[in-house]
Amino acid sequence: MALGTVSKVMNGIPVGEDYRRRVRQAAEKLGYQVNNYARGLKTNRTCTAALIVPSLSHPFFAALAHEVCQALTARGYRMIPFVTSFDPEAEQACIRMIRQNKVDGAIVLTYNPNLEVDPELPFVTIDRYFSATVPCVSSDNFGGGQLAAERLIERGCRRLAFLRTGSRVPGEADKRGDGFEGYCRSRGIPVESLRLNDGDGPELFAPFLRERMEGGKLALDGIFCSTDRLAYDICGMLAGMGVRVPEDVQIIGFDGMRKFGDADLYCSTIVQPVRKLAETGVDLLLAEDRSQLPAMVCLPVSYLPGGTTREPPEAGKELGRGQ
Amino acid sequence: MALGTVSKVMNGIPVGEDYRRRVRQAAEKLGYQVNNYARGLKTNRTCTAALIVPSLSHPFFAALAHEVCQALTARGYRMIPFVTSFDPEAEQACIRMIRQNKVDGAIVLTYNPNLEVDPELPFVTIDRYFSATVPCVSSDNFGGGQLAAERLIERGCRRLAFLRTGSRVPGEADKRGDGFEGYCRSRGIPVESLRLNDGDGPELFAPFLRERMEGGKLALDGIFCSTDRLAYDICGMLAGMGVRVPEDVQIIGFDGMRKFGDADLYCSTIVQPVRKLAETGVDLLLAEDRSQLPAMVCLPVSYLPGGTTREPPEAGKELGRGQ
Repeated sequence: MALGTVSKVMNGIPVGEDYRRRVRQAAEKLGYQVNNYARGLKTNRTCTAALIVPSLSHPFFAALAHEVCQALTARGYRMIPFVTSFDPEAEQACIRMIRQNKVDGAIVLTYNPNLEVDPELPFVTIDRYFSATVPCVSSDNFGGGQLAAERLIERGCRRLAFLRTGSRVPGEADKRGDGFEGYCRSRGIPVESLRLNDGDGPELFAPFLRERMEGGKLALDGIFCSTDRLAYDICGMLAGMGVRVPEDVQIIGFDGMRKFGDADLYCSTIVQPVRKLAETGVDLLLAEDRSQLPAMVCLPVSYLPGGTTREPPEAGKELGRGQ
Repeated sequence: MALGTVSKVMNGIPVGEDYRRRVRQAAEKLGYQVNNYARGLKTNRTCTAALIVPSLSHPFFAALAHEVCQALTARGYRMIPFVTSFDPEAEQACIRMIRQNKVDGAIVLTYNPNLEVDPELPFVTIDRYFSATVPCVSSDNFGGGQLAAERLIERGCRRLAFLRTGSRVPGEADKRGDGFEGYCRSRGIPVESLRLNDGDGPELFAPFLRERMEGGKLALDGIFCSTDRLAYDICGMLAGMGVRVPEDVQIIGFDGMRKFGDADLYCSTIVQPVRKLAETGVDLLLAEDRSQLPAMVCLPVSYLPGGTTREPPEAGKELGRGQ
């Protein structure tokens, strides 16, 4: 058998099935291992991709890293995670390190609006639109905001509020509030908003809530929070004020995070399709033809009740609809 | 300047400070990037380490991956995570892939007692003693069990139980129950145990609890659970039986997991020093002299109240002691 045939098999280039099987068997018998570093030098392909995220321990990023790792593994790739701790300079340093490590591409959850990316390096962003040449994958944040409004109004809410905390850097997640407010207005339902930034501290929401207490009762009956974490903090504040959830006010969060990663939801929530986000990101990153990639892919979200809303008796049926 | 000097600087071999600075400046000006693949072929060092874990989304593994990634980055290394989903065959496949990817070492949280490891590859295990030649890093599980017993008895508990669920493969975590039961017996406090395995389902704890209901009251006043997750499930079961926590029975878990990764504890708990576990594992993995490594390192744990115990008024002081 020609050496070229062996090389083709070991590098995944199609040859006859019989050749492929014989080369694989011989390699196994000899204990032959591909040296990915030698291959990386020769082919300029390393079968590794970077994932740049603020943290690996925050549950949303942990779930995303888990799914990206699984999706890359299924395609024969290794994931190299880089942790930025929300530091724009650390993000830029990651981009430099990536060049040095010769990865085949990068999936990036960035908070640096001025990030200088290598035009040669395949690049996909999550949740943050960058430019027409960098595909962005995100949940349908606008539609998720609409869905939260629809669900609260269906459950009898008539005085609504949107509470938001998050990065100062504009991103796709900002559309959650736009979708929520737009839906409320289109139905003639009054809606108020308080939009804060990370670092402002959740305690700044307390005055907003206290100002809306009238005769020991909250003058709002439905609140949409921009994340499950914020919903959790708001529930704690309301408990301290003697306001009952969901009896006095119903609350919907966003993300679909679960306790211990796979147990109960923290609250009723708009669920992000984390696995689908990861798989779509990996598909776009590894696409053979990069001239035809979409600039933006928004994936559908769903509603799940998690104890902070009053579910109608037919909730079971509706759950299916929302999925 | 000699080419050899440049090579030394770029490969981190000591040269005079003035040479080092000049080479770095020239490299920066020219936009020179080290090609880690070329370096890997030449030096047989790749500055990458594998982390083999069952999952990246489970909060304990997510926290561990985060800290291992940070500790490796601080030492100029990249982490390549491998997800095994608790499958022993997947673990063995990871070991094969690692050889192909030429990592400099691996940190492994394994559930495969028959794992064949490469004697040439630096290897550190977490939570599972493997052999005298493979360093194992774990929390002081035995001491943590003792500490849980001590805290429950101090808080007035006189009829105790230990509940356990986890892998069928023996591991360091099994010592939690041994420490707990040993401490209770040494103080003459009655203690019962129920040890189940993953896959048995937490509902199998319900009959154990129901059999100990006497006249509508639980005949136990303190329960130590082998994990925070189990403590969370047991609290849910007890609520369904009309038993109040911590008024009727006090509960301590193990791990120190927090909601959303950094918010409230799920329960009163024995906290594992996750960052210290990661840093110690990385130190042992990258140690220059591998002939002098300890076979086992147990790191101290601490107690933190999290709402499922009745804390004495001087709890503040005691918290300091437990840390």
